[in-house]
Amino acid sequence: MGQLEGLSRQQADGRSDDVETPRKGIHNSTTPIRVGLLGVGTVGSQVARILTEQKDDLQQRIGQPLEISGIACLHPEEVNAPWIDKSLLTTDSKYVATHSDILVELIGGLEPARSLVLKALDSGASVVTANKALLAKYGPEIYRTAEEDGVDIYFEAAVGGAIPLIRPLRESLVGDKVTSVLGVLNGTTNYILDEMTTKGLDFNIALKDAQAKGYAEADPTGDIEGEDAANKAAIVASLAFHTPVSIDDVTMEGITSITADDIALAKAEHKVIKLLAVVSNDEDGVSARVYPALIPDDHPLASVHGSFNAAFVHANEADDLMFYGRGAGGAPTASAVLGDIVTVARHIVQGGTGPQISMYRNLPKAPLSASSAEFAVRFRVCDRPGILAAISKVFADHGISINGINQDLRPTPHDPGYSGELQTLRVVTHQCNENTLRETVDDVCKFDFVIGDPSILREM
Amino acid sequence: MGQLEGLSRQQADGRSDDVETPRKGIHNSTTPIRVGLLGVGTVGSQVARILTEQKDDLQQRIGQPLEISGIACLHPEEVNAPWIDKSLLTTDSKYVATHSDILVELIGGLEPARSLVLKALDSGASVVTANKALLAKYGPEIYRTAEEDGVDIYFEAAVGGAIPLIRPLRESLVGDKVTSVLGVLNGTTNYILDEMTTKGLDFNIALKDAQAKGYAEADPTGDIEGEDAANKAAIVASLAFHTPVSIDDVTMEGITSITADDIALAKAEHKVIKLLAVVSNDEDGVSARVYPALIPDDHPLASVHGSFNAAFVHANEADDLMFYGRGAGGAPTASAVLGDIVTVARHIVQGGTGPQISMYRNLPKAPLSASSAEFAVRFRVCDRPGILAAISKVFADHGISINGINQDLRPTPHDPGYSGELQTLRVVTHQCNENTLRETVDDVCKFDFVIGDPSILREM
Repeated sequence: MGQLEGLSRQQADGRSDDVETPRKGIHNSTTPIRVGLLGVGTVGSQVARILTEQKDDLQQRIGQPLEISGIACLHPEEVNAPWIDKSLLTTDSKYVATHSDILVELIGGLEPARSLVLKALDSGASVVTANKALLAKYGPEIYRTAEEDGVDIYFEAAVGGAIPLIRPLRESLVGDKVTSVLGVLNGTTNYILDEMTTKGLDFNIALKDAQAKGYAEADPTGDIEGEDAANKAAIVASLAFHTPVSIDDVTMEGITSITADDIALAKAEHKVIKLLAVVSNDEDGVSARVYPALIPDDHPLASVHGSFNAAFVHANEADDLMFYGRGAGGAPTASAVLGDIVTVARHIVQGGTGPQISMYRNLPKAPLSASSAEFAVRFRVCDRPGILAAISKVFADHGISINGINQDLRPTPHDPGYSGELQTLRVVTHQCNENTLRETVDDVCKFDFVIGDPSILREM
Repeated sequence: MGQLEGLSRQQADGRSDDVETPRKGIHNSTTPIRVGLLGVGTVGSQVARILTEQKDDLQQRIGQPLEISGIACLHPEEVNAPWIDKSLLTTDSKYVATHSDILVELIGGLEPARSLVLKALDSGASVVTANKALLAKYGPEIYRTAEEDGVDIYFEAAVGGAIPLIRPLRESLVGDKVTSVLGVLNGTTNYILDEMTTKGLDFNIALKDAQAKGYAEADPTGDIEGEDAANKAAIVASLAFHTPVSIDDVTMEGITSITADDIALAKAEHKVIKLLAVVSNDEDGVSARVYPALIPDDHPLASVHGSFNAAFVHANEADDLMFYGRGAGGAPTASAVLGDIVTVARHIVQGGTGPQISMYRNLPKAPLSASSAEFAVRFRVCDRPGILAAISKVFADHGISINGINQDLRPTPHDPGYSGELQTLRVVTHQCNENTLRETVDDVCKFDFVIGDPSILREM
């Protein structure tokens, strides 16, 4: 934007020399806008349903009808949603990508999603996608391509399901300076931590339970190790700070080392444990991180339960904002996809596009060495005299000031690989450098009385 | 929209025959977009500050610079914000309204705001306003004029201060069906109810306290009687249901009859009292109401304190959503105004406008007689035998089923006009018709043992 001297990009790039020639063959208000779908799983089939059920209302809101022009998927013969016209199903995703006015990409993953999205943009289609992995890795390339092609790229459903978060960052807060976003953005880990909290379960039991109930996948790695939330953090940071932030820039810790003890200890301090995606912009630069954090139980994020997601945004002028809603699920995610489809369709009817995503600031990434926080570190130890003194000395030797040490004399649950009686020892630090903290914890773990992995939680 | 057969409105209405002629004299990417301000009070002066402080960032985000072209106010000589160029100040609001590319209307009230906004739209300017009273009364006229003139009307700041609520309703949820919005949308009443809750104050004392601290105006009527929230309800209902809803369609009850007793009784049931703006769309039609309600204390709206606002939205596909943030204050409201200015400026750079506000559904208004709820009615009575039986009989005679009656035998605080000892009697009903409930309460109040006004609270 800005180089076009008052012309719309569509006019300026020569793709439409004559304003009487409507865009991409859309001749008048009754000619349908072609919507192509890639993928027809949980979300895609709901998108197809709403497009069918709400046809008349959508036409009123857009000014022209929408029409599903093709649905590409791997196994058309397995699709059995009654509202889907079987004749639209095909395995030829490339054809659908290049013969739509709006391509809705819901296949997920990096390839072939990236190639298909780029092909669609280059064919003159606008793209709506819910693909967080794609945008977290190739966002800047895709945003740039959309701008060069004079078309739209919208992706509200990629972060926080039904919650309008992308659009507020892209438009509502565009006159403000966002300084941080704290999000509970992964429903699977949130469900598991909730179950651990309410039922006193350890992580592995709660995970199995979540898998049995369909809240966690058979391979839960992407969720429990923090990668899903990290993808979302990268997308949010890019938009909030007008700076390219890739999944490769996000540091992540998952929730696998959190135990029922950790949750109980947090509860005693009126705190809850949540997996947070945190992006911020301060004097050290831009950072994006995912980690389990201790949150005071009266903070609005503490009451985000189950598959709900929320994002807590701080901006210089607006102060604190929170956005809350269903973070996943077919219908809620489809609602966000439909909002994007209607927005893009309105642009097609009217000519022009929405705001392009500009990475004009390109701020530096904050070095990891600049990260500091207050930490709560939980060790399991076999009790013997002098442990407290020994551990305190390691922290002191590293220059870390301790706020408190609690030794819980009740035996902790059994620990695989150790048959004796274990106790929980928890060190809460004052603000300290994270690298130093991790070195300290590593040194403490060298003691033979420390058993198993410690957990490291950050105070929010 | 929809009648333009693929042309942008700007092209179709003959205001720009040649696409090489840029819109409204904006010749190239360095020509400033003229921003005119009407009003330079709490919000206006903050808007002027951010436009000045963030000039470079805003230019990057828009593609062209913004320039304050004029500031109209009643008393230019009294303006002393150091960042405001005094030479821009004028009392000639009509000139500013008709010589801007974007007019920012922050004077409030119905006239001259309405005339100036319409003049600005007709002059080809887009309008950004925070004027809830104006839109609640004349919204449909203003939206229609903006559409006819091919310009934008944006008003995020009119409801919920910094909270992005208008844009999500207008765009994010446009592919969904919103069925209800419950909002805590008035900071003054929320502050007063908070003070009553935490300090056990009666309404009049809490109001005086709020006035002394500047949280309530010298004439607080518009806030405490519910009119401010009702204006916001009308705007939200119009957008959510694509149906014109005016302030005259909104029924409202304020918080003046709520006592410390009411709050204490609610607290004992783990509930809080909030002034809610509630708009809904069901088989009876569209309704918009403002009333004090009993909210379970674990509901997300219960933790909205002080000057924070929140809106809880239910949509068919998205399910529950909540938006939370600062509902008032100069900088937060200015953040929302700036978001709108940047959005409108981007449309000017690119050509075209955002989605117009269409009232295409024009749903019927639900008749008041269709309103039903569970109610909690609190009477003050001078205790004597048979009171409970007498009151129960009146409810039974009207066919209202009672869920419970509590008689609090502790004396209530002194009541003006009665010197004896009063007690609190509270009747909680099952779901019942509101008109019938009000007739019942009127009949109960005819007993000479009932003293003063009852309070009527709705269960959420």
